[in-house]
Amino acid sequence: MSMLKGFHKGDIRPFLVEGQQVGLIKSDVLKQLVKYPEVFCIRDCEQTKQGLVELNPAFRDYNERTEQLEKVLRNLRSEELFPALQGWRDEYFEVKSDHRALLKMERAATPLFGVRKYGVDINGYVRHPTQGLCIWLQQRSNTKETWPGKWDNMVGGGLSVGFGIKETAIKEAAEEASIPSDLVKNLVSAGCVSFFFESRQGLFPNTEYVFDLELPLDFVPHNADGEVQAFELLPAKECVERVFTPDFKTTSAPVVIDFLIRHGHITADDVVDFTQIVELLHVPLQSLYIYKTRLEQIQKQQKQQQQQQEKLPNDESNCNCGSLPIKPLENGHKKAA
Amino acid sequence: MSMLKGFHKGDIRPFLVEGQQVGLIKSDVLKQLVKYPEVFCIRDCEQTKQGLVELNPAFRDYNERTEQLEKVLRNLRSEELFPALQGWRDEYFEVKSDHRALLKMERAATPLFGVRKYGVDINGYVRHPTQGLCIWLQQRSNTKETWPGKWDNMVGGGLSVGFGIKETAIKEAAEEASIPSDLVKNLVSAGCVSFFFESRQGLFPNTEYVFDLELPLDFVPHNADGEVQAFELLPAKECVERVFTPDFKTTSAPVVIDFLIRHGHITADDVVDFTQIVELLHVPLQSLYIYKTRLEQIQKQQKQQQQQQEKLPNDESNCNCGSLPIKPLENGHKKAA
Repeated sequence: MSMLKGFHKGDIRPFLVEGQQVGLIKSDVLKQLVKYPEVFCIRDCEQTKQGLVELNPAFRDYNERTEQLEKVLRNLRSEELFPALQGWRDEYFEVKSDHRALLKMERAATPLFGVRKYGVDINGYVRHPTQGLCIWLQQRSNTKETWPGKWDNMVGGGLSVGFGIKETAIKEAAEEASIPSDLVKNLVSAGCVSFFFESRQGLFPNTEYVFDLELPLDFVPHNADGEVQAFELLPAKECVERVFTPDFKTTSAPVVIDFLIRHGHITADDVVDFTQIVELLHVPLQSLYIYKTRLEQIQKQQKQQQQQQEKLPNDESNCNCGSLPIKPLENGHKKAA
Repeated sequence: MSMLKGFHKGDIRPFLVEGQQVGLIKSDVLKQLVKYPEVFCIRDCEQTKQGLVELNPAFRDYNERTEQLEKVLRNLRSEELFPALQGWRDEYFEVKSDHRALLKMERAATPLFGVRKYGVDINGYVRHPTQGLCIWLQQRSNTKETWPGKWDNMVGGGLSVGFGIKETAIKEAAEEASIPSDLVKNLVSAGCVSFFFESRQGLFPNTEYVFDLELPLDFVPHNADGEVQAFELLPAKECVERVFTPDFKTTSAPVVIDFLIRHGHITADDVVDFTQIVELLHVPLQSLYIYKTRLEQIQKQQKQQQQQQEKLPNDESNCNCGSLPIKPLENGHKKAA
C-alpha cells in the first residue's frame, strides 16, 4: 500500500488559513504557489521550525479568501499543470476549522491542498441460507470522471454542507441504489475508517463514516442517478479476493476490508499482518493537522522553562541524568492525547 | 485520556535486542539501567541520531540474555525502586521480534521496558426484546493484583506462548465465565484495538484482539477461577455511561467503546470527537517500534544520494526550489506503509 508515501521525504508542509492548519502542500504545488506572493505567504515558523504555506492573512473575510484563491486556481487550470484541475466541476467544497467556515474551494482542487475530506459508505449485506454472509457491490459507470468501471461499495458519497452524516447516507442510499425507506431504517452506524492516499491527482486524507445495512434476500438494488452500471451480490469469501485486485476502487477498499474484519471474514489467526492492516484502516490523520496544537505546546514549554530558570538559576540537583546522552525520539510519534 | 503522554518530552528511547526494537524505555528506568554497563549498552545511533538502550550484543543466546536480564530485574526488585516489580509473579513473558523468540522476561517487568503486549477480549451480548442490545460486564475480584473491584469486559486474558488467538478466547471464556462449547462456537472475530497507556507502573502498548459473542437471553455467566466477583447485564445506553467512569478498568474501556461504536450505540452524529475517539482506539503502535526500518531507510537514502552525487557532480538543474526555505516536517508523522 502506498499510503503516506512521501512523509519521510520532507516535501510536505502545512497549509494555514487564519492560523489554522487546513491542509498539506507538496513541493510540486508549492513551486507554483510561490509565483503568487500576493496570495500565499511561504515562510518558516520561528517556533516549530516548520516550513509553512499561509493564505495571506490580510484577506478580510470568507468571500475575499474564496475569490483570491479561486483566481489562482483558474490560472493554474489554464496552464494545465495539474491533472486534478482538468476535472474541474464548478462544485464547491467548504474548508472549515473547528466548525468555522473559512473559505470555499473548487472540489477538484482539494487534493492539491491536501484538504481532509469526509464521506459516508453503506455496506449492504445479506445472510444467505446456503452461501452465508454475502455483500452487495456496485460497478461504477464507465462514464464517471473518477475510477470509471471499477468495483465499489454498494453506496457511497461525500458529505455536503448542511447535511448530517446518517442523513447523507439515507439520501445516497435512495439515489445510488433505490433503497426504500422501510429498508433503510435498519441502517446501523459502525464507525469510520481513515486513510491517506496519494496519486498523480494529489493527496487524499479521507475519513469515511461507515454504515452496515442488512437487506432481505429478495431485494435487488438498482441505480437511480446513472452513476452505476451494475450491482452484484458476492459471498464474503469472494469479496475478500476481489477487494485486493486492481478492479476495485483503491479508496473504497478500506471500507470493505473493515466490514470483512468486523464480521469475522478476515481474522488475526488467518492473516499475519492483521494488526498492521487494522492500523492502516485508522491512520491518525488528526496528527497530520496539528500545527496550531504543536505551536501552543512549544510556547507553553518555553514559558515553563522561563519560569523554572527564574526560580532555579543555578540549581540542577533535581536532575541526575545530565551526563547521559539522552536525545528526543524524532520519528513517527503520534501527538499526546 | 492520558494515552501517549510523554512522547513529546523526548524522554523515551528504543530498547534493542539483537538489533531489533522490542521495547521503549523511559528516563526513570534508564537512570537505573545505566548502573549495569555489563548488561545494557546506552548509546546514540550515529545514523538515526536517536538515543538507544541495547541489551549487550555479546550475550550468546536466548538463555544468556534471559539470565543476564533477570539478574538486573531481581536487583531492581530488591531495591524497591519500581512499583511494577512489587507485583512479581514468577511468570514469564516471551519477547519476540519477527516471530523469533529473543528472551523471556518476568511478566511484571514488561511495562518498565515498554514491551508490546497482546490479549483477547470477548464482548458478550444479548438482544433483549424490550431493552434492546445489552452487554455482559464482569466485576473483577477485590483480591486481584491489578485493577481490583473494577468493572471489566465479560471475558479477557493475555496471549500465551503456543496458543492461537481464537483458541485463547475459547479457553478464557470457559475459565472466566463458564461459557459452554455449544455457545462459544458462535464467537465472531471482530478486529482489534491498540492503545498506549502510561501509569506509575510503566508503559502499556497493548493490542487486544476482539471477539463478539451473542448469548441467549437465559444464559448467565458464572466464574470458575475465582478472579471475578460479579457479572451484570447492562443495556447499551447504561454501558456507554459506565465505561467512561473511574469504576471501569481503564485498559479495558477501549474494547467496550469499540463494541459500542461498531453496533451503533456511539455515533458520529452524536459525538463531536467521534473520529478522534476512533483514532485513539487504533493508535499506530507499529510506528513506535520502527528503529530498524528507519535505520534501513536512512542507509538507503544515503546510498542513493551518494550514487546521485557520483552521477551529477555539479548539476542541480532538476531542482527549481533550491531557493525556497523548505524544511522537513518534524512532528507526529506515521511511517510510510
